[in-house]
Parts: sequence; structure tokens; C-alpha cells
Amino acid sequence: MFEAATLGRTVARHEYDAEVSRLRWQLLDAQRSLREARFPALILFGGVDGAGKSETVHLLNEWMDPRWLINRAFDDPSQDELERPRFWRYWLTVPPRGSMGLFLSAWYSAPLMDRVMRRTSRAEFDEALDQIVSFERTLADDGAVILKFWMYLDKKAQRQRLRALERNPLTRWRVSAVQWEHWRMYDRFVSVTERLIQRTSTRDAPWIIVDGSDERYRSLVVGTRIREVLTARLETSTAAVPAQAARRRVRRSVPARQRGASGRTLVDRVDREQSLLDSLDMSRALSKAAYRIALERQQGRLNMLQRQAEVDGRSLVLVFEGWDAAGKGGAIRRVTAALDPRVYRVIPVAAPNDEERSRHYLWRFWRRLSRAGRVMIFDRSWYGRVLVERVEQFATEAEWSRAYAEINEFEEQLTDHGIVIVKYWLHITSEEQERRFKERASTPVKSWKLSDEDWRNRAKWGQYELAVNDMVARTSTRNAPWHLVEANDKNYARIKVLRIANAALKKALA
Amino acid sequence: MFEAATLGRTVARHEYDAEVSRLRWQLLDAQRSLREARFPALILFGGVDGAGKSETVHLLNEWMDPRWLINRAFDDPSQDELERPRFWRYWLTVPPRGSMGLFLSAWYSAPLMDRVMRRTSRAEFDEALDQIVSFERTLADDGAVILKFWMYLDKKAQRQRLRALERNPLTRWRVSAVQWEHWRMYDRFVSVTERLIQRTSTRDAPWIIVDGSDERYRSLVVGTRIREVLTARLETSTAAVPAQAARRRVRRSVPARQRGASGRTLVDRVDREQSLLDSLDMSRALSKAAYRIALERQQGRLNMLQRQAEVDGRSLVLVFEGWDAAGKGGAIRRVTAALDPRVYRVIPVAAPNDEERSRHYLWRFWRRLSRAGRVMIFDRSWYGRVLVERVEQFATEAEWSRAYAEINEFEEQLTDHGIVIVKYWLHITSEEQERRFKERASTPVKSWKLSDEDWRNRAKWGQYELAVNDMVARTSTRNAPWHLVEANDKNYARIKVLRIANAALKKALA
Repeated sequence: MFEAATLGRTVARHEYDAEVSRLRWQLLDAQRSLREARFPALILFGGVDGAGKSETVHLLNEWMDPRWLINRAFDDPSQDELERPRFWRYWLTVPPRGSMGLFLSAWYSAPLMDRVMRRTSRAEFDEALDQIVSFERTLADDGAVILKFWMYLDKKAQRQRLRALERNPLTRWRVSAVQWEHWRMYDRFVSVTERLIQRTSTRDAPWIIVDGSDERYRSLVVGTRIREVLTARLETSTAAVPAQAARRRVRRSVPARQRGASGRTLVDRVDREQSLLDSLDMSRALSKAAYRIALERQQGRLNMLQRQAEVDGRSLVLVFEGWDAAGKGGAIRRVTAALDPRVYRVIPVAAPNDEERSRHYLWRFWRRLSRAGRVMIFDRSWYGRVLVERVEQFATEAEWSRAYAEINEFEEQLTDHGIVIVKYWLHITSEEQERRFKERASTPVKSWKLSDEDWRNRAKWGQYELAVNDMVARTSTRNAPWHLVEANDKNYARIKVLRIANAALKKALA
Repeated sequence: MFEAATLGRTVARHEYDAEVSRLRWQLLDAQRSLREARFPALILFGGVDGAGKSETVHLLNEWMDPRWLINRAFDDPSQDELERPRFWRYWLTVPPRGSMGLFLSAWYSAPLMDRVMRRTSRAEFDEALDQIVSFERTLADDGAVILKFWMYLDKKAQRQRLRALERNPLTRWRVSAVQWEHWRMYDRFVSVTERLIQRTSTRDAPWIIVDGSDERYRSLVVGTRIREVLTARLETSTAAVPAQAARRRVRRSVPARQRGASGRTLVDRVDREQSLLDSLDMSRALSKAAYRIALERQQGRLNMLQRQAEVDGRSLVLVFEGWDAAGKGGAIRRVTAALDPRVYRVIPVAAPNDEERSRHYLWRFWRRLSRAGRVMIFDRSWYGRVLVERVEQFATEAEWSRAYAEINEFEEQLTDHGIVIVKYWLHITSEEQERRFKERASTPVKSWKLSDEDWRNRAKWGQYELAVNDMVARTSTRNAPWHLVEANDKNYARIKVLRIANAALKKALA
């Protein structure tokens, strides 16, 4: 795999200087165009110690405008990072659209070292690589340009390089017993690296193997490839602008199939007949007396279970989705009333701010993840992507269609980390919603809860119902199942919410 | 101090119900007005265990619109929090303008407990309280409404309350040996609390002592006070809107005293004669040969010292300010070239994004603070407040005038935490700047560095010079001194920057 990288190509000083002054200009130009583009660029550097990874990053900082470059090198994870899923710290450093991130020792380091040191099996290694592929694909699908350079040296060249680093007082610190130990394991590194590159070199995030032995040569190769890939991508994305504009226009008009009597088409009605939601027994209710007894009992259990979970370092994520006026807020307050205020956070999800909008839509949920042993309560959630964003056409069909898989992968990373996820759809009938809206409108202390938007959403009941059915069908997984809660009766719904959380916690702690 | 809080006032059920329905409406109304306002509200709850702190927070969440309420309760600090200055986690939770934060066990807890348990001396306690006063004043000066409720129970009432909590299975967990131990130390708590309240009850952030024995009474008191204070403040701030608008108009026209020949007035010229900057020997330079030797030597030292600092958990903050084209970027790259990419971050400071704009201007610097043992390099910094924001009138005179003290306090918290701060002003002469601008304009690879804004800023050289002089005079402290760097010669400047960083690190590690 690395044969081509050992041909010992060099570049003469004068050639290099001439080429670099052109290249810098082109890179700056590409960077400037990138500023206007709706996507980020991630450039990752891996490879052999001494092959010039950090030197290259340093050089790119000199060549380009550092204000729009983000440099990240990752150390061993901190305590706070260890308390989150593995990709948490990587998600948080994804550069915003329009800028470029240069990554050193990033998400490839730990899987590679673990496998070289035989701390993981080959199957575990492959699984870790698959997670990386999925992470990169998620970003690439959202538009990110991803380029990965593997800086290579053969065994002899590495020894020479390490010796040279040792001789220089400025770089001596970079060579310790660890580097020499790795050098002695050179062949092991090569075989693990080959597998790593094979399995993670994808169309959207390819590896480029660079001969690291000649500084000028490797610098030119890296700079040129970045320029090529960026330029090509910027051209495509410019060409795509009219399509984008077209999409925006579409959003504002209602597509033909969604019109029709009472806002529902035949297709909607047919789908509704098979609706999961229609299968619920909406007459379920609980008397006030029974509610009071059950509430105290379930809150007491939740409190006990959560404290046990805290000791075990297990976090709980509760996702509340449901129709407007279905009683999410009231149900959430019955949960929080049972908990120590220090351990929970209620995260109300509204429109993203500009920092959030400039990233992948999952970024703002990643950043909210708490440390171990806590409770995160999402009042609406990442499912907005496949509900409101789908129905209101804020997301394209391609975007919301692939969101199901992205969400499943996101939740899998949480549950793999030991986080317990419980997802509720609070369901009320259309008639009950109308009754509650009218009650809200006529009760001063409740009228703030009702906006014109609620009435507008209500007119799209059929479309939302389709979206809910698809969502439940496609994202109810064994580890993060959806629970449909019959919520025409608030007492019944609140107790069911608590019971489900308790059952999930109990199962997880068993 | 607490006598008035033990009168045992109660409210009858029907009175309470009538009052609450009015109060809720008024609170919602105030909350809605707050959304439009340019300030946040911080409501803090302290007091005796069992006096109803968390119950009150819970109730306020039920009464108001939870989307604009932020609830925060603080546990023992996490490892990542311990690695930052004490107020880091509080700064990060300051609610954005237009919203309200409810705080439990916040910045008062640790100083109170430490003093009760005699882990701190009275002088240390007072110092901790002074820091709180300064933190709250900083927020209040920026417009924040701050209200603090001390929920009180006398010794007998507390015993009754703790027993009642123990009897209820849902609240039993809240009473452990710790609470009873505290109860036995009741008198000690009272005397420490009295001092705490006396010293931290300020005009802008007053304590309100609330009799916690009757639930209905205390709920009404808290709700009513929040309504009163918010309403009063919203009225004042509405009245102030014309003044704000006027300020904005002023910004766009150039005030008379700033006009005149070559953009400088007499006042400017007089001030310039006493300028610190003029006292610099701008002819200082270093030959290329001497530079190369010194560079290698200083970078080697920096690398060694930083690794020592990392072991000791000491972070280094480098602040780079200077004229446009003074060579900040080049100097920064000579620093980073000496460092392991995992330990440093370069933080380029441009216009704030909307998440940042909705907080105190220092918030975005607080959130950038790294864990212990790292290097943070600010390419421009919080000093923008007293430089560009002053000169361009983005900040009012009141705002930039008080910024000096705010910045000194901010930096003091960093240095108290063991962080080493080094601040550079890279100085070039006006002539040298002109030469560099022209060179940039005519060199393709450099032309991106030059914008029309640079020429506009240049026209305000005199005003900036005044601002720089004030800044250095008012914020050069023993622990966080300014270093003026003669930067007409880049070699000389880069070596001086490295030397100063090394000297500061060496002194700190001694």
C-alpha cells in the first residue's frame, strides 16, 4: 500500500519557491471562496511519527488566513470527556460552515494504538473504524469536505528522522522512549495502518498517502491536494446554487399533494388508516385519587432509581415529543419534581441560533450532553428534523430522509456509552387538541401557550401524523424505543411517563 | 437580622388562590416583556435546608413559561471545572439577555460552607464575598437584574421541616446525616450567614429574606418581588430606549473633536506627547543571523518551560494586541512552532456571534478558557472593548470606562488560579504601517491581509493611540503586565515576544 510513497521524490529549492507562491495564492483564494460557501472543510493528518504532520499543519497556517483556520490536536481525553460518548469531543470541534479545520491525532489515534497494542480484537478494531466511517459520512452528507493525509516514512527513514529530531534542541522533546518503542514495532504499525486505511478510505473522505521524507515534496503534495479538492468542490457548489434557491421557493408554496379537503389528500388518509397512533386506546384515564397515589409512588421510585444510576455513572436521556398542547410541560414537571435539581437539566428545543445553524443539525444536541450520572430532559429534540423540518420543508427530502439513520447512529453512540434513552410521543386526538386550544385561548394564565403557529400546525395534522408514523417506524430501536403515550387524560399520561422511565432505568441498572 | 422572618405569617387558601391567578398573569407578562429587553434576570435562592428553595424554583417553573427560564443547580465542581478559575462555571451559565435564570446552590454555597466548617479564615471568607460582589456588579453594570432570596427557618421550624421531609417517601432522600449535622450547627450557620448577607446585599443585587415556614406565604413573597423588580426595571429600560437610539445615531457620524488636520485634534496631539508608545526606541532591530540563533534558543526554552508548566498544571495566556500589520500573526507562529499542537490553541478574536452578543462581553472569553497546563493565544482579545469598541463607539463611554476594572478583575481571577498572563502591544510607527500596507497591496499572497477597514482604522491613528495609552496605564498590573514590543523590525519583535513569555513562565515556575 505504501510502495508509491517510498519513491524518494524530491523537489528542488527554486522549483519549490516558484510553485509555493502560486499555490499560496490559490489556497487563499479557495479559502476566501469557502467563506461564502455553506460547508466546512476538515483536513486530517495521520501517519508515522516524524513524517511531518505538525510541520505541515504549521506551514498551512503560514500559507493561509489563520482567522478561518481551526487547529485541533487531541490529547488523552479529560475526565469530562471520558464521561461522554467517545465522539463528543470530536463533534464539538467540527468547524463551522465556511471555515477549515486542521486535525492532528484525532479520531484515528485511539483505535490505531489500541489495535497495535492488542488491547482490542480485530473485530473491535473494525467496529471502531465503522463508527469513524459513519461519523465522517454524516458530516460529508451535510456538505463537509473531508481530506485525510497519511504521512509516511519507511522504517529506515523514520529512524533517521527520529535521530535528527533528537539532535535538535528545539525538537528533542518530541522523541522519547515511546517513539523508539513504536519504531521497533514498525511492521505491526504498518499492518494495522493498512487495514485502517483500507476500511476508512471512502469516496467522501479519502486517505491520501504522502511520502514524508522530503519536506518540500510533502508540503507541495498536501497543499496542492487541498487546493484541488476545495476548488473542485467550490465549483460544484456554486453550480448548485440555483437548485438551492429553487428549493427555498418551493418551501413557501404548498405542494399540490398536500392540498385538498381539510388539508389531507387521499394518500394521507390511506396512510392514516394504518397509523400506529390510531391503534391507541385514547379513552384511558386515571381518577384523581388513583393519580395521587400513583404519582407519589412513581416519583419516589424514580428518585431512588436515579440516585442509583448516578452512583453507577449512568445518565438518562428523556425525549419528549408530541402534539402541541399534548401536555409535555406538565409531564416534564412531574419528572423533575422527583429529582435533585443538581442532577437534571431541561433543554427546551426551539429554532437554532447562528452558531448552531453553522453546523450539522446534530451538533447542538451533542454539545448539550451532560456528564455521567445526570438526567437530560429534551422538550422537543433532534426529531424536529423529521417532524417540523420535514412538514414545513425546512429540510429537503434528502436531508430528512437520511436523518433517520443519522439519529439511530447518534442514539446508538449514547446507549453504547451506557446512557439510557427513553423517547415519548404524547398523543392526543385532534378533537382534544381543539378543546385545549380553545381553553388556552379563553384562560388568561394559559393564553401565552397558544400562538397562531399552533393553529397553523394544527391544519397540517395529517402531514404530521404521517411524519410521526415514519419516525416511530424508523427510529424505534431496541435500545432507544419510542413509547406512545395516550395523553387525552393528563393524569394517565403523567403516570405512564414516570412508569416507563422507571422501567427503563430499572432494566438498565439490573 | 432574621427576626422579621419569624413572624409566622400565613396566607389562607382562598386568598392565595386569588392572588396567585393574578400574579401568574403578571409574571408571564413581565417575562414576555423581558424577552424584548436587552438584559437578563438572575434569581438566586439560598437559605436553610428545608426552607423551600427547590420547591419555590419548581413552582416558578410552573407559573412561568419554561422556555425562557434556565434552571441551574450546582454540584461539587467536576474535574474540568476544578481546572478553571472558580467563577468559570458560573460565567458559563449566565442566562442570555431576554431570559431568566433560576440558581440553586450557586456561588454562595462553597464560601458559606467553607466558613461554617472553619476551612477558611474570616479574612478569606470576606475576600470570597468581595469576589462575589464584584461578579454580580459586573453583570449588573451590563444590565442584568439580580435578585437573591434567602429562605429562612428558625431552629425549631427547621427541625419540624426536616422531620416532615423524612416522613415523606418522596423527599426522604433529601435528609441525611449531613442535614442533621448542619441543624446541630444552626447557630454557627446563622452567624456566618448574617455576615454573608450584610456584605453581599448591594443596591444592584439585594438579598431578600423570606420566612420559609408557610409555603403559600413564601411563594407569594417570592413571586411578588420578582414581579415588582422586573416590572420596575422594564419600565425604566423602556424609557431609556430613545437614549439608546440616539447613541446609535452618534456612532455613525464623526464627533467634532475627532476631525481636524490629519485626523488629529490638539487634545490628541498633547496627549501624544506624553505617550508611552513614543518613548519606545523604534530603531531596535536584529540581524538575520542573530535572529536565527536567538529563535532556536528561545523556542527551545519555551518548549521546555511549557512542558514544566504542564506538569505543574499552570496555564499560559498570551494576549496579542497591536497596530494592524504590526506582525501579530508572524509572532504567534514563532510561539506555536515551539509547542506541541495538543497543548495550545490560537483564538482569533473577531466580531462576536449572536450567542456571544446576548451575553456580557467577557462571556466569550470565559468560555474559551482551557483546562490546566495549556497555552491560550489570543489574537486580539477582551481589550477590543477599550480599543476598537471605544474608538468606533460600539461601546458607550460608560461601558468602556468601567471595562478597565472589569478586565483587571477578570485577569486577577485567572492569575489567582495560577494562570500566567502575558500581554503584548506590538508597536510600529505610522510610517512603517503605511509601508507595510502598500507592500501588502502590491504582493498578491499578502493582499488578503489588507482591507478598506485597515485604511479607515489608520485614519484614526491618534484616537487609537490615546486608547492604547489609557489601556496600558489602567490595566498593566503586577500579575498581568503589558509589554510594549518595538516591532518595526520583525526579527527583533519576535525574539522579544518569546523572551518575555519565557521570563514570565520561568518566574511563575520558580
